[in-house]
Amino acid sequence: MNAYKSLTPEQREAELNKLRNDFDAICECKLKLNMARGKPGKEQLDMVSDILTVLNDPAQCVVDGLDARNYGELAGLPAARAFFAEVLGCKPEQCFIGGSASLQLMYDVVAKAYTHGLKHSPRPWSREPKVKWLCPAPGYDRHFGISQSFGMEMITVPMTPTGPDMDLVEELVKDPEVKGIWCVPKYSNPDGIIYSDETVDRIAALRPAAPDFTVLWDNAYCVHEFEGDFQPFRDILSLCAAAGNPDMVFEFASTSKITMPGAGISVLATSEENMAYYLSLAKYQIISYDKMNQLRHVLYLKDKDHLLALMKRHAGILGPKFRCVLDTLEREIKPLGIANWQTPKGGYFVSVNTLPGLAKRTLELCKVAGVTMTGAGATYPYGKDPHDSNIRIAPSLPAVEELQKAMDVFVLCLKIAALEQAV
Amino acid sequence: MNAYKSLTPEQREAELNKLRNDFDAICECKLKLNMARGKPGKEQLDMVSDILTVLNDPAQCVVDGLDARNYGELAGLPAARAFFAEVLGCKPEQCFIGGSASLQLMYDVVAKAYTHGLKHSPRPWSREPKVKWLCPAPGYDRHFGISQSFGMEMITVPMTPTGPDMDLVEELVKDPEVKGIWCVPKYSNPDGIIYSDETVDRIAALRPAAPDFTVLWDNAYCVHEFEGDFQPFRDILSLCAAAGNPDMVFEFASTSKITMPGAGISVLATSEENMAYYLSLAKYQIISYDKMNQLRHVLYLKDKDHLLALMKRHAGILGPKFRCVLDTLEREIKPLGIANWQTPKGGYFVSVNTLPGLAKRTLELCKVAGVTMTGAGATYPYGKDPHDSNIRIAPSLPAVEELQKAMDVFVLCLKIAALEQAV
Repeated sequence: MNAYKSLTPEQREAELNKLRNDFDAICECKLKLNMARGKPGKEQLDMVSDILTVLNDPAQCVVDGLDARNYGELAGLPAARAFFAEVLGCKPEQCFIGGSASLQLMYDVVAKAYTHGLKHSPRPWSREPKVKWLCPAPGYDRHFGISQSFGMEMITVPMTPTGPDMDLVEELVKDPEVKGIWCVPKYSNPDGIIYSDETVDRIAALRPAAPDFTVLWDNAYCVHEFEGDFQPFRDILSLCAAAGNPDMVFEFASTSKITMPGAGISVLATSEENMAYYLSLAKYQIISYDKMNQLRHVLYLKDKDHLLALMKRHAGILGPKFRCVLDTLEREIKPLGIANWQTPKGGYFVSVNTLPGLAKRTLELCKVAGVTMTGAGATYPYGKDPHDSNIRIAPSLPAVEELQKAMDVFVLCLKIAALEQAV
Repeated sequence: MNAYKSLTPEQREAELNKLRNDFDAICECKLKLNMARGKPGKEQLDMVSDILTVLNDPAQCVVDGLDARNYGELAGLPAARAFFAEVLGCKPEQCFIGGSASLQLMYDVVAKAYTHGLKHSPRPWSREPKVKWLCPAPGYDRHFGISQSFGMEMITVPMTPTGPDMDLVEELVKDPEVKGIWCVPKYSNPDGIIYSDETVDRIAALRPAAPDFTVLWDNAYCVHEFEGDFQPFRDILSLCAAAGNPDMVFEFASTSKITMPGAGISVLATSEENMAYYLSLAKYQIISYDKMNQLRHVLYLKDKDHLLALMKRHAGILGPKFRCVLDTLEREIKPLGIANWQTPKGGYFVSVNTLPGLAKRTLELCKVAGVTMTGAGATYPYGKDPHDSNIRIAPSLPAVEELQKAMDVFVLCLKIAALEQAV
């Protein structure tokens, strides 16, 4: 195979015709494959089935004199707070345990900033003439969705192989209307990048003009290696505190991709000052999130070591899927010079950057051929990818042989899009 | 026993001295009893233990082609929506299934009104110069807490034996700043009053000046008889629709006092138009609440008939507790003419109205004697009972013999407070 740019127009034309024939043949197969979202596959869900029966006796429900079945304990079951504190490397008092969705906790922090203000807010954000938010991109569409839903002005910050472009971030936070930033520090969604130590240090040491500038630190993939050993990460709470920004960060994590996405538990971790403030607002909202599910998770996951052993078993299922994606890209796309990508060792995505202007067309073709992917542009604020280039591949849901079919379609469509453009 | 007002000053003094001796003797016992909150007792929690094991096999998790373990279904598991629709007498499409707390859903509707506005809001409530809210009182402290947290101006509406004073409500809603009302239509918290059909009809037919006037209809005790048969109730959604107010009401219920308060499921029911609007906002907030717990509940509770049979078993535990409270009041307080109360057949409270000025002092004495009660004033907006008269008794948590001790203390303290005042 030769890079497409080295082909003569006639060679391109001939290649395009050949690929279009392949495409027509594939359309005949009426495939129905999905690589759209980071959904764990059935094999992963079945693997954790013991969690269904680990909490089976009323005698288990009373822990430290507290009955998990009854009302109380706004911040969550002490054992669940201790569990997440060990995983995140912070203190139990810094952990608030939520329901099945860390997204809900992120939304809630933003919502409370708008209705009540955060601890250091001069006023609720609903009374600010404008709220701007930094959005490293490509990024997570649901993060951008929250910002958009609240009418924030989203500012795109390019991602680099070491995390968000920190020169730009440091510049942008000088604007007092810039109130915060979304971060996925480990195996970023979608690139799978781990923020470098320098990036993390620079974030912790930011000197924002807004007194209530807030880092929403979504540590969604903190223990989610699908290849190789667990990569330790640093505690952002103590880093911020050491840098003189103790109340600047809210960290989030969940068990959605550890036990069950539809029934996990989540955590919000922040300084004790922030926690006291958050609880003073949350006490009007809820008596506590589901403590029985918290207990079920603590009984099942036990501690960090036991959790990491489980993640190795998830890796045993996910690893081959990611290798299928990366091998196919390496074999079919790399020689053509029409796209590049990171090769992550954890997280839930492979992020492909095509030559400019190919993403939409590629995904349009995929759709026709029966392969559903994350919509083009979804990884950028307002759904607008300035170069129409980024495509997020989510390989976790299909079985490997289906995934291979889907990837065959994907690379075919990408090739066609590239040749169409060049012809 | 004679009514205290018929006693001579000397008789009162003598009686007070006698009671104070009794009080001192009780203080020696160092009691530690709690009638503060509507917490189910251990016996009730143990009774539902089968729910712990009803969902034990991965094969159960796939229902109607949908895997409850995985992401998806924002509005909740279809089976759970159908279950609540049957209980509430509305349609499954009108039901949104939440997490362990209906309070959270109520808070969320109010929060969204502030950040985004409701369907018919001219603007988000955060941009309204003032938001007023009708608070039938005595009422539920956590309702008033939400209103207060958002800075609403709370307007007290007196409760009558048939529900809120509707003449006053109809007058007050002519003010466009009045944006809504809290209602607990069946076994109101704390009075245990069932709104009459006329009251319900008048609420459904309100003609508020505010286009986004909202009835928050907390049907917390809709199947919670502790004595006698299930009392059917009417579907507020269709009543509002028939009266030309289809989008005026959000109804709430939960299984907190059916299965487990710390791990139940909740429902928000509203018109399909409101539902579409609510989902258009909620989709940024959460992928779905815990669907496995929804499934667990559906498997355990099955349907309305089966639910009502379970409620009879709860009544078997709660009935004797309420009879203890009511019998003690009847025997010890009624002849004295110092308080009156409703005699509810469902709900979780007995609401005692003392002669003016006795509530705080009574509860102060209770506290000294080791009996914790809901704080005086808690049943009124801003925690201020204008007559210092209402006391909420929550008999569900203690065992009957402890409860009897607590009630003995309570009536003693109430008598002392009454005599102190009269001396």
